Amino acid sequence: MVDTIFSHRSIRKYLDKPVEEGVLNQILMAGIRASNTGNMQMYSMIVSTDLDLKEKLWEVHFKQKMVLQAPVHITFCVDVNRFHHWCKASGTSIPYDNFLWFVNGAIDAVLASQNVCIEAENNGLGICYLGTTVYNADRIIEILDIPKGVIPVTSIVIGYPDENPTLTDRLPLEAVIHREKYNDYSKMSIHEFFNEKDNSEFSRKLVLENGVKNFASVFTEKRYKKDDNIFFSKKYFEILKKQGFFNHD
Amino acid sequence: MVDTIFSHRSIRKYLDKPVEEGVLNQILMAGIRASNTGNMQMYSMIVSTDLDLKEKLWEVHFKQKMVLQAPVHITFCVDVNRFHHWCKASGTSIPYDNFLWFVNGAIDAVLASQNVCIEAENNGLGICYLGTTVYNADRIIEILDIPKGVIPVTSIVIGYPDENPTLTDRLPLEAVIHREKYNDYSKMSIHEFFNEKDNSEFSRKLVLENGVKNFASVFTEKRYKKDDNIFFSKKYFEILKKQGFFNHD
Repeated sequence: MVDTIFSHRSIRKYLDKPVEEGVLNQILMAGIRASNTGNMQMYSMIVSTDLDLKEKLWEVHFKQKMVLQAPVHITFCVDVNRFHHWCKASGTSIPYDNFLWFVNGAIDAVLASQNVCIEAENNGLGICYLGTTVYNADRIIEILDIPKGVIPVTSIVIGYPDENPTLTDRLPLEAVIHREKYNDYSKMSIHEFFNEKDNSEFSRKLVLENGVKNFASVFTEKRYKKDDNIFFSKKYFEILKKQGFFNHD
Repeated sequence: MVDTIFSHRSIRKYLDKPVEEGVLNQILMAGIRASNTGNMQMYSMIVSTDLDLKEKLWEVHFKQKMVLQAPVHITFCVDVNRFHHWCKASGTSIPYDNFLWFVNGAIDAVLASQNVCIEAENNGLGICYLGTTVYNADRIIEILDIPKGVIPVTSIVIGYPDENPTLTDRLPLEAVIHREKYNDYSKMSIHEFFNEKDNSEFSRKLVLENGVKNFASVFTEKRYKKDDNIFFSKKYFEILKKQGFFNHD
């Protein structure tokens, strides 16, 4: 059993203690050992530790304190730019500026990120993913001088933990797993699978705090609302085109 | 150091030996412990072991022998369908049928898949990712009865290895890592970073076999050609729209 997988919690408070260069190096090496499409490694990791840069990134990531606190910030990007440079240097064509390679590269980047996280946690470090990367990818592109052919998909912060939170709840395994084929949900199975979530102390507290009728509404009416989702969908898709991942109809 | 990360090789030959139910369960549990957006778990894992199903999947995955050989096949999907069922049961709106949640869900699905792979390898099993998932997602949707709101992004096969391949080469760490900001590549740095790849015995052999002028051309002219890339880009994007992940301009 890989203990770090089963004991993973996102860490949002960090000690004022840098990550040793040797440890950081090993963590990054773990990233590049991940599977990737055709061994073409269509991703890049941008490792930022500079305080000024972190302050700019903190603004973009909705001013979450941990972005300032954690000593290391890594932005994982789809990257066809490096491969295209190689194609040019080899006098051949430039065929990866399209949606397929955004998807392939995103898979590769995320496989690398998870290796980095597991290896980091195995070294006593804490991590937290930043979903805000997709929301403000345009500003991250500016801050980190990211060229065409490259687009951020996710980011993490890494550092020594200054908190020890409990494990987060998950849906029962049967809710997420389908045996053989996809078994669509019935009203009854949804009720069964979400029952614990709906009735936990945690969710009741959030429902009260947010003044909504139930836990699902905390997500749909407060945290991830339709208008925001559509706004950020359009925005990220525009960035994707601008970065050169959609040179076709 | 998480040994399985550093000793990972894709396994393409499998013993005729099933994966024990207890082991499989533990591996799947590892998947759901992964970080995910807002703890909303917008993904599903479809675990197929049935021979007839595997034969259909084998056809779709370009008839790669390992798909028939390996006892377990897992299809990782973005899934907003389950969450939407919950929204409906809770009498609230249905806001996740858009591109943002395709991207969020794809990240979540791939984080789960990498946990599954690392835990599998830690149990003595071998794995291989199937990039062909994106190419023929429409046929996978048919075979596995996948409803609207769900789209396959990657698949793996799992089983006991019947081969012991060497580690695959990777670009030097400095080629994939950028310190502080993105450092774009020069002709010189590209030459330096790809030198080993260009001149390895492995690549020279492939160049000869494929009758092309250099290693980059093996990718651009043979394996991942522009026309194919554009064909599959358009196809996957259409599937994405059809599955309900693009209900906006």
